[in-house]
Amino acid sequence: MKLEQDILENLFTELKELLGERFSTNLSSREVHSKDESYHLPQLPDAVVMVHTTEEVSSIVKLCARYHCPIIPFGAGTSLEGQVIPKSGGVCLDFTEMNKVLRLSEDDLDVTVEAGLTRRQLDAHLRTSGLFFPVDPGADATFGGMAATRASGTNAVRYGTMRENVLGLTVVMADGEIIKTGGRARKSSAGYDLTKLMIGSEGTLGIITELTVRLYGRPEAMAAAVCDFDSLEGAVNTVIQTVQMGIPVARIEFLDEVQIDAINKYSKLDYPLKPTLFLEFHGTHNGVIEQAKMVEELAAENGGGEFQWSDKEEDKNKLWRARHDAAYACMALRPGAGMWATDVCVPVSRLAECIIATRKDIDDTGLLSPIVGHVGDGNFHTVMLIDTDNQDELDTAIAFNDRLLERSLSMGGTITGEHGIGSGKMEHLIQEHGAAVNVMKTIKQALDPLNILNPGKIVAIDGV
Amino acid sequence: MKLEQDILENLFTELKELLGERFSTNLSSREVHSKDESYHLPQLPDAVVMVHTTEEVSSIVKLCARYHCPIIPFGAGTSLEGQVIPKSGGVCLDFTEMNKVLRLSEDDLDVTVEAGLTRRQLDAHLRTSGLFFPVDPGADATFGGMAATRASGTNAVRYGTMRENVLGLTVVMADGEIIKTGGRARKSSAGYDLTKLMIGSEGTLGIITELTVRLYGRPEAMAAAVCDFDSLEGAVNTVIQTVQMGIPVARIEFLDEVQIDAINKYSKLDYPLKPTLFLEFHGTHNGVIEQAKMVEELAAENGGGEFQWSDKEEDKNKLWRARHDAAYACMALRPGAGMWATDVCVPVSRLAECIIATRKDIDDTGLLSPIVGHVGDGNFHTVMLIDTDNQDELDTAIAFNDRLLERSLSMGGTITGEHGIGSGKMEHLIQEHGAAVNVMKTIKQALDPLNILNPGKIVAIDGV
Repeated sequence: MKLEQDILENLFTELKELLGERFSTNLSSREVHSKDESYHLPQLPDAVVMVHTTEEVSSIVKLCARYHCPIIPFGAGTSLEGQVIPKSGGVCLDFTEMNKVLRLSEDDLDVTVEAGLTRRQLDAHLRTSGLFFPVDPGADATFGGMAATRASGTNAVRYGTMRENVLGLTVVMADGEIIKTGGRARKSSAGYDLTKLMIGSEGTLGIITELTVRLYGRPEAMAAAVCDFDSLEGAVNTVIQTVQMGIPVARIEFLDEVQIDAINKYSKLDYPLKPTLFLEFHGTHNGVIEQAKMVEELAAENGGGEFQWSDKEEDKNKLWRARHDAAYACMALRPGAGMWATDVCVPVSRLAECIIATRKDIDDTGLLSPIVGHVGDGNFHTVMLIDTDNQDELDTAIAFNDRLLERSLSMGGTITGEHGIGSGKMEHLIQEHGAAVNVMKTIKQALDPLNILNPGKIVAIDGV
Repeated sequence: MKLEQDILENLFTELKELLGERFSTNLSSREVHSKDESYHLPQLPDAVVMVHTTEEVSSIVKLCARYHCPIIPFGAGTSLEGQVIPKSGGVCLDFTEMNKVLRLSEDDLDVTVEAGLTRRQLDAHLRTSGLFFPVDPGADATFGGMAATRASGTNAVRYGTMRENVLGLTVVMADGEIIKTGGRARKSSAGYDLTKLMIGSEGTLGIITELTVRLYGRPEAMAAAVCDFDSLEGAVNTVIQTVQMGIPVARIEFLDEVQIDAINKYSKLDYPLKPTLFLEFHGTHNGVIEQAKMVEELAAENGGGEFQWSDKEEDKNKLWRARHDAAYACMALRPGAGMWATDVCVPVSRLAECIIATRKDIDDTGLLSPIVGHVGDGNFHTVMLIDTDNQDELDTAIAFNDRLLERSLSMGGTITGEHGIGSGKMEHLIQEHGAAVNVMKTIKQALDPLNILNPGKIVAIDGV
């Protein structure tokens, strides 16, 4: 369903008038905005605009609505299920120049930012404040993108995901109306939770332009350690027992030996090629010692080696940078290949069983695919490196992914812990949520009757 | 907008066939279901049904939809803004006999319960398990009611509200369709967050019949203390500094001297008549000592007395039972009066300013109104005892409440931290959320086109 060229020309004339040089139909710009970081095939938008203000986004949406033209919000382009790919063409709204910190309250531990700010940009802004924002997906994603996909990362086991850390939003609706959801109070029972409805809606219900998020004081003490294990099972059981005992670990990340090999090569490290946990503890000085001791004992009982501590800030940063670069390290294992990162999340009691069955399944397929995950939440990824031009390989990957999602659902898990649905998991969403997907469709149709907001993602409306 | 009697008769014949003796039009039963615990005036439902299963609720909703008859879900009847009062008559669905614990996973720290289970019933069920559920509004509310009003309580500062602690729901929609939202995984990015949309929707978007909620292991150590202060400001500043320092206090509750007087009388206690904090610390043995020491130092700097520790489990329970009974203690101050509990929540940096201005405002009106609150979240209540037959008193209370909500909004706060909108704050919701209320209405109309689900609450549709 592409728009007629003459209709587009009229819209473009109006957009150009509004935005001047920040409107482009240049092929190279369209190509940059045709893809994300996944195996999904690129598709070109018809035009790209660089947005600067909420009011401008509202004007653009009103224009596009008049011409029934699709609108795709675009941040860092780091989505993993095709979320930013313009399935029906349309106008791509690039937010990267709309990245100001609008307000910071050290007393209330909150900050209001524009949607195009990235997490590392906020880190830099907060460096001297003693505060930090905990949600950290691998990529240096934008706040708008992280909220839109309900992103999480390594700290979620202790600090929660975007779902728990966004207090309020400014959103441009499909008719151009600007609304504010939530607020700065820590809790509120004032009507329907539109904040949470927008988080994870992937730009299909409204366009997030500003966010107020929670911050945390840097703990008195932080300590990071690496621990390798004789077996995958031992590593995962250590995680399960840590969670069950309620030890408030800040990060507890699993990497299998294939993933360790990848990051050793990419980040020039020399960890033993064994199933490994990366851990971090936050608290008071004594609290950190106490937590670490408890987890170290659990690890020892499960065949874990000694904790290797990263005492210097520099070493700690190197460790977590390597973890964040895990996806890029995987891609470097097979240059030119497409990356397909799976993303199931199961109740923690089933985690060892699920990972073991999945590792065996991968090995049986012959695919190259490290396993890495935020296992404290029950969430893990297999990162398949595939030649997307090779139909056999693609078919093998598709069949493996189907089995994995089935396995997760059969264990009471979900098809996606943090990557979202995009265009990649729309059928599986029905498998997970059944009749509830009809309720999602009803909401989509009510809030976006023309189906112009990122069409073809999450739920299909009239076949699109 | 009441239904014609002959239409009701036909519906009632069908409901009686379905439910037998669990269908009633008996006046005394209708009276029990005509009111909540607030100052809002009672209104009778046309009939009351005792529900037992989700499928039964679905059948009832389908019947009521056919006759365009309003449906009001009813749990413990402890709402505070008229949520369960049948504004347009209709059929009241009483959930108190649908109160089973369906499944408990000690390994995954979660439990699935029917909507009519109360929090104390779950407490009793968990007594031997070493687990607990943290959300504890004053009343012994049902899980369905707590989710529907996005309730919280004394533990929210550390463990969150219903918003953070519900993992998944079974919901009957306005057409009788049964859906499952969320799931048992700790996080998921699978489509729109219907769980969070239902939480706080007060029975206006769907009827919650089952809930899966998070549980927590009982901490190794728990300690409770009471501390009185020379001034209201000193007590509140201690709270603000505790929150800003990130000390993970489990409970930190403020009671002004009027509230202390009320609970002394009601619960037969003898606390000094001074602004007072009730505190609780959870953690390891050493962690609790460390936290308590830090807060005790802050209190001393702010004019607080020595911490009075409740060492025995029995004393601790007595302390928190008195806190939970605070509303009933207020009501006992003026027998026969109506209770109007206000419920603002502001960013914590503005809390002292807001409470001080509010205390002065109450004193100027001459109303009898203790102040009590979950101040760690920035949330507090003034509990006005008013003669609802006295228009002058009512007018004074209305004007005071309007000023209080205005004050909260001007400080970046909300009109309700945990009591919800009901029929009592629909106008104020527009004041807080402006154009976003139109989005809420659009969702309500899409999901409940006949406006039969608890009409006249949160948003007005066609004047109802």
